[in-house]
Amino acid sequence: MPVIKKNSVKLREEERARLIWLLTTHKALTATLLGEITLVEQVNSEVLDQHLLEVRALAAHLPPPDLADTLEALPVVERHALWRVIEDDKRGKVLLEASENVWDDLIDEMSDRALLDALETLNIDEQIYLVQHLPRNLTGRMMATLPPKERARVRQVMRYGKNCVGAIMEFEVITIRAEVTLAAVQRYLRRLGKMPENTDKLFVVDRDNRLVGELTLQTLLLNATSREVGEVMESDPVTFLPEEEAERVARTFERDNLLSAAVVDENGILMGRLTVDEILDVVYEETDNDMRQMGGLSTEEDVFAPVTKAVKSRWAWLALNLCTAFIASRVIDGFEHTISQLVALASLMPIVAGIGGNTGNQTITMIVRALALQNIQPGNFSFLILREMGVALINGVVWGGLMGCITWWLYGDPALGGVMMLAMVLNLLMAALMGVLIPMLMIRLGRDPAVGSSVMITAITDTGGFFIFLGLATLFLL
Amino acid sequence: MPVIKKNSVKLREEERARLIWLLTTHKALTATLLGEITLVEQVNSEVLDQHLLEVRALAAHLPPPDLADTLEALPVVERHALWRVIEDDKRGKVLLEASENVWDDLIDEMSDRALLDALETLNIDEQIYLVQHLPRNLTGRMMATLPPKERARVRQVMRYGKNCVGAIMEFEVITIRAEVTLAAVQRYLRRLGKMPENTDKLFVVDRDNRLVGELTLQTLLLNATSREVGEVMESDPVTFLPEEEAERVARTFERDNLLSAAVVDENGILMGRLTVDEILDVVYEETDNDMRQMGGLSTEEDVFAPVTKAVKSRWAWLALNLCTAFIASRVIDGFEHTISQLVALASLMPIVAGIGGNTGNQTITMIVRALALQNIQPGNFSFLILREMGVALINGVVWGGLMGCITWWLYGDPALGGVMMLAMVLNLLMAALMGVLIPMLMIRLGRDPAVGSSVMITAITDTGGFFIFLGLATLFLL
Repeated sequence: MPVIKKNSVKLREEERARLIWLLTTHKALTATLLGEITLVEQVNSEVLDQHLLEVRALAAHLPPPDLADTLEALPVVERHALWRVIEDDKRGKVLLEASENVWDDLIDEMSDRALLDALETLNIDEQIYLVQHLPRNLTGRMMATLPPKERARVRQVMRYGKNCVGAIMEFEVITIRAEVTLAAVQRYLRRLGKMPENTDKLFVVDRDNRLVGELTLQTLLLNATSREVGEVMESDPVTFLPEEEAERVARTFERDNLLSAAVVDENGILMGRLTVDEILDVVYEETDNDMRQMGGLSTEEDVFAPVTKAVKSRWAWLALNLCTAFIASRVIDGFEHTISQLVALASLMPIVAGIGGNTGNQTITMIVRALALQNIQPGNFSFLILREMGVALINGVVWGGLMGCITWWLYGDPALGGVMMLAMVLNLLMAALMGVLIPMLMIRLGRDPAVGSSVMITAITDTGGFFIFLGLATLFLL
Repeated sequence: MPVIKKNSVKLREEERARLIWLLTTHKALTATLLGEITLVEQVNSEVLDQHLLEVRALAAHLPPPDLADTLEALPVVERHALWRVIEDDKRGKVLLEASENVWDDLIDEMSDRALLDALETLNIDEQIYLVQHLPRNLTGRMMATLPPKERARVRQVMRYGKNCVGAIMEFEVITIRAEVTLAAVQRYLRRLGKMPENTDKLFVVDRDNRLVGELTLQTLLLNATSREVGEVMESDPVTFLPEEEAERVARTFERDNLLSAAVVDENGILMGRLTVDEILDVVYEETDNDMRQMGGLSTEEDVFAPVTKAVKSRWAWLALNLCTAFIASRVIDGFEHTISQLVALASLMPIVAGIGGNTGNQTITMIVRALALQNIQPGNFSFLILREMGVALINGVVWGGLMGCITWWLYGDPALGGVMMLAMVLNLLMAALMGVLIPMLMIRLGRDPAVGSSVMITAITDTGGFFIFLGLATLFLL
């Protein structure tokens, strides 16, 4: 290792890339690590040994979050090979930082014992988080190793949904009383000797553990040590309930620039805390899921999953798409007679459908985004519909007019040009209307508007576009 | 106002909704606030007065971030009306939290003087941030009011690009020396009397202002006050350069669970700090931009912008889409003779194109995401291409086979079914290949792979799908 600061972001990036390159381009290396050495010819063993040493050195040097990222960037076999090299005491932390896809792959080949050993290096909050999410149900066995108080906590957490505050909150908090002096708080902290990671504030509770205020470390340091906690604490802090949705809470963290916040039950009893680093994970995951869903991918698919898994996770969207395409195809088939009379219609109809799909997707993206930002309220809803219809009308007249003229010029038929323009205007208006209504309707039905909206709008603008265009042609041109 | 905790997230949410409802559904209210009262009939003035009082009370009660969000959720006229009600001393903070779209609208109607007054309530870091981004160039005038040291800083910041660390870092940091005791640090902090918002650590520098370590408030509180800073500080902290890209830095914040980090120049001289609340803004903005760009929207469009602005910001995507649809249409036109012989082709061809577009978009979404996560490295690139081709081949054979059988059954023509299946397999393979290559190519050309990838892949799978299907039909069926 060169003498360079161990935390250099650039160095760690290079090391991750090197590790990926070593594992993916040297089959013998991977095979050796997996103990399949008998299958591989032992040529060039000196180079192999050198590579082995390097892989081990890199795995030992990289911190757990980087190892987790490296695992994410490897195909399954190489993932297993790298996992073998990661030291036992790092494995728990690596699992904690890795995604579900990595868990699925790695945990299959670990014994229950090995898994529990890996968990043992973590603190109780981390253990609870992993045990809840791991694919194999080890909850019972882990619970047996816990003291009764912790066991009760695990049971409590497991009641909350995966996307709730309760599932991502931490139990480890430092609580103090309002009547003590800041000097006493400082002595207490030094006696404790440590604070939970990223502690920026202490929670002030009464004897029933009811939250009465918060004392930031800043306030603790800026005020005279003779003052009492109750005089300087924030007595009206932002708090969350364990049932609240994590994504909405994340918006509040962003809005209020929070670093952490208390989680209390409906009686104001302190249950735990939320930290901004958890929130950052939530935001990245939310984004990621939204983008996948708008692109027609399942939220579970992993870029390095094997072919069979990818096929399985994508088939539903494909099947849905095929169904909608089939319906559109049947609409066209209904106009077979019209098309056989005027073959030009066949080449023009994808333009009408395509421009509708484009506009519909623009509108839907905008609405889904505004819904996520909680920008749409009953008061401004009609404004939005009118605005989108206005945009569609202008675009329809301008671009439809242009396309109508081109059609006239290409085929020398003004009536065909007129039908083209009218069809484009109508399809754009329908796309805009549906682009607003579909996500709003999905919200009303309690569903995530990002999921499938794009497929639905495309289906409507395709089928509708073909129907409008061929229908108008049948009416006016035959 | 009911007696309820002022920070209640739920109460603030309700108040925002109420404010939006009042302003959007009462034209007379908006008109009165904008001083256009002569235009409005003075009916029901008692109700009007009551509403005016309520709007003022809500605007006075809601904190600046909530007012900024409310402004975002209003059409232009109502935006102006609300802005009139917001008190002068809150305006700076509201601007700070609002987006560029809101600035564009509000600042048009403020005088330079009013704008500078609003800025005056902010600290220097906030002033610099706003002055850099405001649509009107007030930099010169604001600079004149600054002390020389601050002026030099502004000049320095303005050198960095909008998406760089330099543009979002804060200058206000607390620095200490390594040789002093923790007790001395505590005395120093109490004398200072305040710390910059969300300070979680102090920066340890030498006499040249070179960063030698970091002292978290936690460390300061947990250790005996007789110890020296140098003994307990973190001497190898994660730091960033001002030129680094904010989005990449955000990933490091997430990976390392950072709350703040030092920004240093290439000589290790401390320039400022980055905080996680800025990073959270960066992440939300990044997501937002990615989603808009994948949906074919400009990053500037605002959901409540007037129709004309929306038309202007969307025309480029629509024009591009129309061009690609036109090219696809010309490809079909080239096969006019084939279609006139076998009209069924016209109704089947959208299926081939549609399924290709779906697969291509799935692949592209996956690759764009993996690129953002820095998961794609030279070592695993060929694995990715092969995997996507494998998935496409299986899907092509399965779904193409199914569609081929249905076609055979519908039209009683086995050759047509065979052409359908072959065309679907080929178009899916092309979609998968292009879905990997297009974003990789855009990265190589130094462009953002999220922008326009979706339009390009759809264009290719449409045009290619029509060409493959009609070409095969011409070869085998005529």
